[in-house]
Amino acid sequence: MSACFTLILAGGGGTRLWPVSRRARPKQLLTLGGEETLLGATFRRSVDLVGLQNSLIVTAADQAEAIRVAIPQLPADNLIVEPAARNTAAAVALGAAAVARRAGNSARVAVLPSDAFIGNEPGFLAAAKLALDHATDSIVTIGLRPSSPETGYGYIRLGKSLATDVSEVFSFVEKPDEATAVRYVAEGYLWNAGMFFMSCAKLFEEANQHMPQLGRVVKELLSAPNFQTAAQQHYQSSPKVSIDVGIMEKATGLRVVAAEFGWNDVGSWAAMPAVRAPSAEGNVAVGEHVAVNAHNNIVFSETGAPLIALCDVDDLVVVATADAILVTRRDKSQNVRSVVDALAKQGREDLL
Amino acid sequence: MSACFTLILAGGGGTRLWPVSRRARPKQLLTLGGEETLLGATFRRSVDLVGLQNSLIVTAADQAEAIRVAIPQLPADNLIVEPAARNTAAAVALGAAAVARRAGNSARVAVLPSDAFIGNEPGFLAAAKLALDHATDSIVTIGLRPSSPETGYGYIRLGKSLATDVSEVFSFVEKPDEATAVRYVAEGYLWNAGMFFMSCAKLFEEANQHMPQLGRVVKELLSAPNFQTAAQQHYQSSPKVSIDVGIMEKATGLRVVAAEFGWNDVGSWAAMPAVRAPSAEGNVAVGEHVAVNAHNNIVFSETGAPLIALCDVDDLVVVATADAILVTRRDKSQNVRSVVDALAKQGREDLL
Repeated sequence: MSACFTLILAGGGGTRLWPVSRRARPKQLLTLGGEETLLGATFRRSVDLVGLQNSLIVTAADQAEAIRVAIPQLPADNLIVEPAARNTAAAVALGAAAVARRAGNSARVAVLPSDAFIGNEPGFLAAAKLALDHATDSIVTIGLRPSSPETGYGYIRLGKSLATDVSEVFSFVEKPDEATAVRYVAEGYLWNAGMFFMSCAKLFEEANQHMPQLGRVVKELLSAPNFQTAAQQHYQSSPKVSIDVGIMEKATGLRVVAAEFGWNDVGSWAAMPAVRAPSAEGNVAVGEHVAVNAHNNIVFSETGAPLIALCDVDDLVVVATADAILVTRRDKSQNVRSVVDALAKQGREDLL
Repeated sequence: MSACFTLILAGGGGTRLWPVSRRARPKQLLTLGGEETLLGATFRRSVDLVGLQNSLIVTAADQAEAIRVAIPQLPADNLIVEPAARNTAAAVALGAAAVARRAGNSARVAVLPSDAFIGNEPGFLAAAKLALDHATDSIVTIGLRPSSPETGYGYIRLGKSLATDVSEVFSFVEKPDEATAVRYVAEGYLWNAGMFFMSCAKLFEEANQHMPQLGRVVKELLSAPNFQTAAQQHYQSSPKVSIDVGIMEKATGLRVVAAEFGWNDVGSWAAMPAVRAPSAEGNVAVGEHVAVNAHNNIVFSETGAPLIALCDVDDLVVVATADAILVTRRDKSQNVRSVVDALAKQGREDLL
């Protein structure tokens, strides 16, 4: 059986959890009130899945140092730094080229986002192992059985069943509106968690077919005497396309492992109840706070930030750091983007 | 014409504007986003009314130093420090005794709260002068023509009209419920602003009649060779009663000057629109903030506190200091008391 590696994608910026997440402190580096960062938990699960030496992190140049600090146990060679930002298709190809140089084209990689929350880790490990088992000749993804008709996730429509919990992928579908999401859930569609499992050979073959320019970059990365030098020289000519759009939506013969393991992408503050348990009053609260006649609020006060006192309010999101406070409605918390845009217009770079 | 003095009552603590107001930083020492503190503005108006040398401040021992810092121009002898907390009847008597020792019993005093906001200062000065003119033999108060049926204020029911804007007081009435407040406004009742004008002689006479123990303290204060020593020795035997209950509600022959001059006692955060102009979106905002699709909120970020970002919320109060944030509803902002009580129970003395 060929060797298995992980490629943990940790290059994203993101402001969806502003003011706690910032350009210089992306979501994967947040603990959200727990003991480890989302990246730290992802890396720990990766070590459980493939071992420390086979756990690789792909990141952007301006985040490399923060990653080294966050994951001190990461072997130096296992931090793959993108010479330029070229979206996820190129980032995965870069990581896979590093793996193939080390273990050959038959090595399999598990591509894992670094910033999702997973509540049931044994469930994740079982699903990921099953996906790797099926990833010798096919690209395999994991589809999460929906717990609600989420409109913030892409979905996977299943094709023919191949084995227990394993099916063909009929198609990937975009984030739906609410009525469509309800239908998707009723019809057995799964959430797309952005996890992909395949051999390096399969990835390179698909890249050659659907992203020939990326295929040429991969050839350079594989054949050059020095990987770093080749990356510096050729990576920037990669197209800026996500792996979903550039490869997954075009590749054929994809398979999906159906699972459920308390997965949540923590795409907005409204996701906090999936990550931290609510109180009897329905408040999810992290950090110093007091709540008087307040229900179903999400309260987050970072260490060192002011105490948050709620009185006679329901269904709000209140998040405090030392320099900024967000107050919004729980059902509107995805609009935090518009606050960040307003601050950018005001030139408040210090708060972005 | 006898000399006129002011007695500015600045001993109150109060948590109604928590987290900005604290035990050690009472309302009268707040600027509420303006250039001067409420006490500073009161003192400035006092100087306009009676001159610097005749402007006295009565305060508690633990606030004396803060007052000296806040009002550096205050003549040293004009800070009257209560040896113990004995409520306002005793505080006014103490101040009036100091005045009488200086200028005789015929001197008149204007008793002024230190923590109200006044928008129209010429209007105030005209009303206060009219009140002093009528205060030779009677106790005179100022009644504000109501701009709305407030339930947070006491009211004055008018008796016989004596001159333009001057009437007898029929009675003082307690804070009403909403229906009663509507009736009071319809029937021409006025808001009781807690301002009283009278000669020292008249005050002492009423004290002798209705608060004989306080009358005895006054006698000691007037006859002793050293005022400070007499105060230390006798003041603490004063009854703890407010001047409203101890004297005003019992005295006869009271007069009231009717006026309106943008007066507001800033009894809760909901009063901020009377103090600072709202934006086109109805938000009253002081300090660093950004508002996106947010209407009719009251936003207050103290200097040095985090920026407040509101998104998709209406009718809230959001107040931030460096160590505490209050989030409540505008129509419930008087309940901040319950937050302070909850913090006290948790032993958070640092936030009280």
